[in-house]
Amino acid sequence: MMIDDDMETGTLGGYQERPRTFPNMRSKAYTPLIFRILLGINVRVLFTILLLGLGAIFYMGASTSTIIVFVLTICILSFLVAMYLMKWVLAKDEGPPEMVQIADAIRDGAEGFIRTQYGSISKMAMLLAFIILCIYLFRTPTPQMEASGMGRSTSAYITVASFLLGALCSGFAGYVGMWVSVRANVRVSSAARRSAREALQVATRAGGLSAIIVVGMAVIGIAVLYATFYVWLGVDSPGSMKVTDLPLLLVGYGFGASFVALFAQLGGGIYTKAADVGADLVGKVEQGIPEDDPRNPAVIADLVGDNVGDCAARGADLFESIAAEIISAMILGGTMAQRCKIEDPSGFILFPLVIHSFDLVVSSVGIFSIRGTRESGVLAPMEDPMAILQKGYSVTIVLAIVAFGLSTRWLLYVEQAPSAWFNFALCGLVGIITAYIFVWITKYYTDYKHEPVRTLALSSSTGHGTNIIAGVSLGLESTALPVLVISVSIISAFWLGQTSGLIDEAGNQTGGLFGTAVATMGMLSTAAYILTMDMFGPIADNAGGIVEMSQQPESVREITDVLDAVGNTTKATTKGFAIGSAALASFLLFSAYMDEVSTFAREPFKQVDIAIPEVFIGGLLGSMLIFVFSAWACAAVGRTAQEVVNEVRRQFIERPGIMDYKEKPDYARCVAIVAAASLKEMIKPGALAIISPIAVGFLFRILGYYTGHPLLGAKVVASMLMFATVSGILMALFLNTAGGAWDNAKKYIETGALGGKGSEAHKAAITGDTVGDPFKDTAGPSIHVLIKMLATITLVMAPIFL
Amino acid sequence: MMIDDDMETGTLGGYQERPRTFPNMRSKAYTPLIFRILLGINVRVLFTILLLGLGAIFYMGASTSTIIVFVLTICILSFLVAMYLMKWVLAKDEGPPEMVQIADAIRDGAEGFIRTQYGSISKMAMLLAFIILCIYLFRTPTPQMEASGMGRSTSAYITVASFLLGALCSGFAGYVGMWVSVRANVRVSSAARRSAREALQVATRAGGLSAIIVVGMAVIGIAVLYATFYVWLGVDSPGSMKVTDLPLLLVGYGFGASFVALFAQLGGGIYTKAADVGADLVGKVEQGIPEDDPRNPAVIADLVGDNVGDCAARGADLFESIAAEIISAMILGGTMAQRCKIEDPSGFILFPLVIHSFDLVVSSVGIFSIRGTRESGVLAPMEDPMAILQKGYSVTIVLAIVAFGLSTRWLLYVEQAPSAWFNFALCGLVGIITAYIFVWITKYYTDYKHEPVRTLALSSSTGHGTNIIAGVSLGLESTALPVLVISVSIISAFWLGQTSGLIDEAGNQTGGLFGTAVATMGMLSTAAYILTMDMFGPIADNAGGIVEMSQQPESVREITDVLDAVGNTTKATTKGFAIGSAALASFLLFSAYMDEVSTFAREPFKQVDIAIPEVFIGGLLGSMLIFVFSAWACAAVGRTAQEVVNEVRRQFIERPGIMDYKEKPDYARCVAIVAAASLKEMIKPGALAIISPIAVGFLFRILGYYTGHPLLGAKVVASMLMFATVSGILMALFLNTAGGAWDNAKKYIETGALGGKGSEAHKAAITGDTVGDPFKDTAGPSIHVLIKMLATITLVMAPIFL
Repeated sequence: MMIDDDMETGTLGGYQERPRTFPNMRSKAYTPLIFRILLGINVRVLFTILLLGLGAIFYMGASTSTIIVFVLTICILSFLVAMYLMKWVLAKDEGPPEMVQIADAIRDGAEGFIRTQYGSISKMAMLLAFIILCIYLFRTPTPQMEASGMGRSTSAYITVASFLLGALCSGFAGYVGMWVSVRANVRVSSAARRSAREALQVATRAGGLSAIIVVGMAVIGIAVLYATFYVWLGVDSPGSMKVTDLPLLLVGYGFGASFVALFAQLGGGIYTKAADVGADLVGKVEQGIPEDDPRNPAVIADLVGDNVGDCAARGADLFESIAAEIISAMILGGTMAQRCKIEDPSGFILFPLVIHSFDLVVSSVGIFSIRGTRESGVLAPMEDPMAILQKGYSVTIVLAIVAFGLSTRWLLYVEQAPSAWFNFALCGLVGIITAYIFVWITKYYTDYKHEPVRTLALSSSTGHGTNIIAGVSLGLESTALPVLVISVSIISAFWLGQTSGLIDEAGNQTGGLFGTAVATMGMLSTAAYILTMDMFGPIADNAGGIVEMSQQPESVREITDVLDAVGNTTKATTKGFAIGSAALASFLLFSAYMDEVSTFAREPFKQVDIAIPEVFIGGLLGSMLIFVFSAWACAAVGRTAQEVVNEVRRQFIERPGIMDYKEKPDYARCVAIVAAASLKEMIKPGALAIISPIAVGFLFRILGYYTGHPLLGAKVVASMLMFATVSGILMALFLNTAGGAWDNAKKYIETGALGGKGSEAHKAAITGDTVGDPFKDTAGPSIHVLIKMLATITLVMAPIFL
Repeated sequence: MMIDDDMETGTLGGYQERPRTFPNMRSKAYTPLIFRILLGINVRVLFTILLLGLGAIFYMGASTSTIIVFVLTICILSFLVAMYLMKWVLAKDEGPPEMVQIADAIRDGAEGFIRTQYGSISKMAMLLAFIILCIYLFRTPTPQMEASGMGRSTSAYITVASFLLGALCSGFAGYVGMWVSVRANVRVSSAARRSAREALQVATRAGGLSAIIVVGMAVIGIAVLYATFYVWLGVDSPGSMKVTDLPLLLVGYGFGASFVALFAQLGGGIYTKAADVGADLVGKVEQGIPEDDPRNPAVIADLVGDNVGDCAARGADLFESIAAEIISAMILGGTMAQRCKIEDPSGFILFPLVIHSFDLVVSSVGIFSIRGTRESGVLAPMEDPMAILQKGYSVTIVLAIVAFGLSTRWLLYVEQAPSAWFNFALCGLVGIITAYIFVWITKYYTDYKHEPVRTLALSSSTGHGTNIIAGVSLGLESTALPVLVISVSIISAFWLGQTSGLIDEAGNQTGGLFGTAVATMGMLSTAAYILTMDMFGPIADNAGGIVEMSQQPESVREITDVLDAVGNTTKATTKGFAIGSAALASFLLFSAYMDEVSTFAREPFKQVDIAIPEVFIGGLLGSMLIFVFSAWACAAVGRTAQEVVNEVRRQFIERPGIMDYKEKPDYARCVAIVAAASLKEMIKPGALAIISPIAVGFLFRILGYYTGHPLLGAKVVASMLMFATVSGILMALFLNTAGGAWDNAKKYIETGALGGKGSEAHKAAITGDTVGDPFKDTAGPSIHVLIKMLATITLVMAPIFL
């Protein structure tokens, strides 16, 4: 991670003789303090420390379960693969100096923003950690805690430590995403001067590098925490905690991860789209200059945005998705194992970790299947990059199915229900198929090869107004199929789990919820590859920007344009995937929450009855939360974009030479404006998301106390959570799809349809695209994170609702 | 109603000497067959029949309860008031021949559309009636039915008859709204030539006329049905039905009313906005001619739309609101009276009818308080019409509070809880205050005197895109305050009801839900006046159109412009009001549904537990229904508007003389296109709304049967209903407010702000207004109706979920 010796070995292509203006910023990359300290230590000492650490981790793993050892081994191996990928990517040349200069400016902007943003986030995280500590120090211990001799303070420290570790890892995951992409972008641009295939390979390997680190870190973090708690608390020894209760201690980790991911996504999302919208509105619409033109003062801010919004934020987002899903599945596995009196519950508990270890393996294979060199001689000069990525995905998915089958047989085979593992394998298949259909649906609604986007493009020909109406309708309508698919998959996975043969002491079938959990794991069983495709997009987009800004020949720009277009599609499809898994994970965390509440409250909490007025109102408030959160996220982009527009207009007026390349635009000012505004704007929606469930739970707890309703606070929060999840799924689907469709309707017109570039229809389509920007890249993805953060915050904050 | 002798007595003002072109259509008004038959009968015979009918109704009323007699008397008196208003309005002059010609064209278009539309709706209603009949003939009778000796066929006929009567009355209410407005519009235009005050008076009295008939018909319909069933079934005599079970027989009436209202609102809403958007996009944006210019081929279609969309549809909508709310409150009153063993339950059951009778009285006073003649000599030449309307509203609301207090003391006083009536009076006050705050919130978010619309207008200055983003954010954010207000009012009304002192046999407090019902009645206790203000808008709008088309002097146009602007505000505020009452009424119908199911199923049905996966999925599907319904409603407008745009463009190209008044545009063709398209387009969303709850309930019933879950279908439908209600409230608030705000942001710029008319900001604001049109006048109001239709359809269709 610390390698920063940028190499410049590539042969430089010929350049056009147009005047060039470039930002003159410092090109020394910023290295965070911790890395500087590490770099200052002697390499041998560092190596020894690392080895000792690894030894300790493996020792703890070995004392816990062989499964943990397996998981740790795979993770370490994956990190080695990631090291190899990093070396490979960094060894690529950075191209001519003008490219490097631009890339440096982008890197500085991105690192500067992340630094300040992480500063704000860590302050908030510390405050929240303190609040959690206070709450846990004053809460009544549960019977389990008493039985295991775990005091209040132990439980408080465990929760706070997991929270902070989760936050740290999530932040680090985001940082890695950004770190890789600001280094890969220029290398992709440089490779595009040689061949499309090489550019594609560099972009996918860079994406794969981030993906492996993000997924690996989620897995290893949970594995290490689990093993540590296991050893420290002496789990399963007489008089102490049972192993089936252990996963509940990990929820703090999930909350920490989603807390950081929420702010990373909000801040980054606002940054990227405000810069994009602002740059387009003046540059493309008013001045008529192309996208990423060096004359546009907001262009560097726009390129920085891709890195902090798409790469860093998505890294944190997917880290948090995987962490939340692993933890919720572990909790459910533990609960079920306990109910069914399974002799060795560790298989059920650790199953999600194994699935994601295999995910690392199969996705690596998929990533490496995308070759750069033409091994057979029959390849066309320019293949469809989408087809190549799809081929890699097919490889990954087939391997994932095999691995899933093996894992279920290995870990979920129990004597009392010999065919249960097979049912669960089918649940996994349901999840994989659901993911596949989700990807297909998103493509149907957002790809201009299909009817909906074409109709949308046609509606642009009658004006801005009809374009927006058609886009909104398309987005709203596109919620139908995913909801039907999710419904069928929840019911069928639940039913497969229910009929698995696992029964509790009273003879009831109990595998249903765990079946849904397994389906969620199936859905996420190729997460690393999906994340690779997702990261690919912004890297290619950035590479295109660098090519345009350094005024490379048209042929180079064509290559990056194709990659960029593919990136748009993969980005849209992974969003469908993210929202599907968020829906399932939330549903799982919801039942974990109910278990947690009944444990705390020492009375059964099995029902959330929406016929009770207060509970109904909780639901109303939950749905409202989603609406207001989306409003504030979109409004933040709109306001910040207006600031950018005014600044860019000002620069064009005050420096008339910019348009003739005679004067240099002040890029840094735009970067500074966007960074400051997005840091300010991310607070309001973020605070709303965190404070409202706590406030509602606490208020209704008091109301319940005075009106004699026990558990009222917990019930109202449960209903709030469920309604927020439902509304959130729909709202996110609406926002993502409408945004993607508008973007591609514009692209479709730019291919020459309906009058092509510059026509009235094109102008209307640009309006649609502008509206879609905050929908699909700020509000939409923030809602994915919000849903899971709500689920984890209610779990961690449960004590104050009771 | 049969008076059609249009009078032309007014003095005609001076006209400008511009060339005029007018549609040359037949000016003979169409009279429906039934009226023609009635007109053919001798007046004395008719009068005798009417008297005999009235006598029979009063006889039945007298055998039921003195309260019914009171209600019937008030309704008859109100109809006499309405007759007076009709005579008064029709006695006003219709102005010069060119106005009459235009008005005739509008009337023909509106009547033609309503005729065809009602033809389609009645076919669907007959089909549905047949389905209901089949379902009820095959269902198992409930214990109550068996106890009362009521057979299957009786119950089937009762349900079908109520359904058809509800549908008929709802349709008639819509027809009355249209009938009045197509006659009042030209009289308002003509009055505007004389004075603003007179124009205002004509418009409000015409609106009041419709309002009194609509509200009166809802009340008298239910009263007559109630009395008929009471006498026919021999209620309360030994061995037959108990009076507390009687209200449940009325749900068919509510379903019929909402069924017709849904299609009326959808068809009318699509018609009015498609014509409006289409006319504006070519006329205002492309050709730069003013609104309602006679050269625009779509202008007559646009004016027809105001009548069929705003007047007819809103008449049916408010009729249905009141009917649903009365019936649900009667059911809850009956249930509570039975549980608390109240000796004479009729007070509790008939309370809503009395409240709405008083509504007729106090609203009439309010309507008559708006005087046309200047009685004091100090009035300014042009008063603010909004202030005048507000003054009338204040008068009405004060009287309503007094009447509410008296009614509660009269009907809700019971010996076992002597202070209960006072608690319920407070509940009513909660409702009235809620309505007032709702109106205020809507005004805050949609009036350009306040911050939000000004910010929206400002965002237009940076382009179309930022305007749309800001509008969407504003709409989404505007859901927060109403939801908080509704939450507080539900909880406080529930709590006031709960602590009223009414207890059931087991000693539990039971008044909570009835308290909420009383709050709903409080909210709707000035419904007739609210409807008057609502109807006022489109009449004024039409009058403005007629003035513009007949090219009256600027001063006349100014008067109608002011009235039109006031109409926009009143329309927006009544929508807030409608959605608030829909939310409350739905919540009440929901508990009626649960009672109904447990009666049918002969087992308690007290909980809807969203922790069960299937029930959760029901909720997901319910919310999805709202999203898809909104999508289809908006898309219908978009598609139809595109047809209009193409037709208008075609006419401008093929008849270049139109722009110089040398050629006549083909108005009729635009009318025909919009009418045909909206009739076609209303089917898809309407069918979705009706079929999906039935399909979901039936599917999950079967699934429940095979997986051994009793009542699964009913539970899933309950959850679907609740989630749809919540999402529907939010979506409707979003759509209505965003639409209203966009409209007024445009108006604000037109006052000269931010560059005024013709500036780039104005163009962006027009785009926003265009997008807002289907939001606020098609999808938004249709969702109000949809929510209540879902509640009534689940009640009526309950047998097939079990």
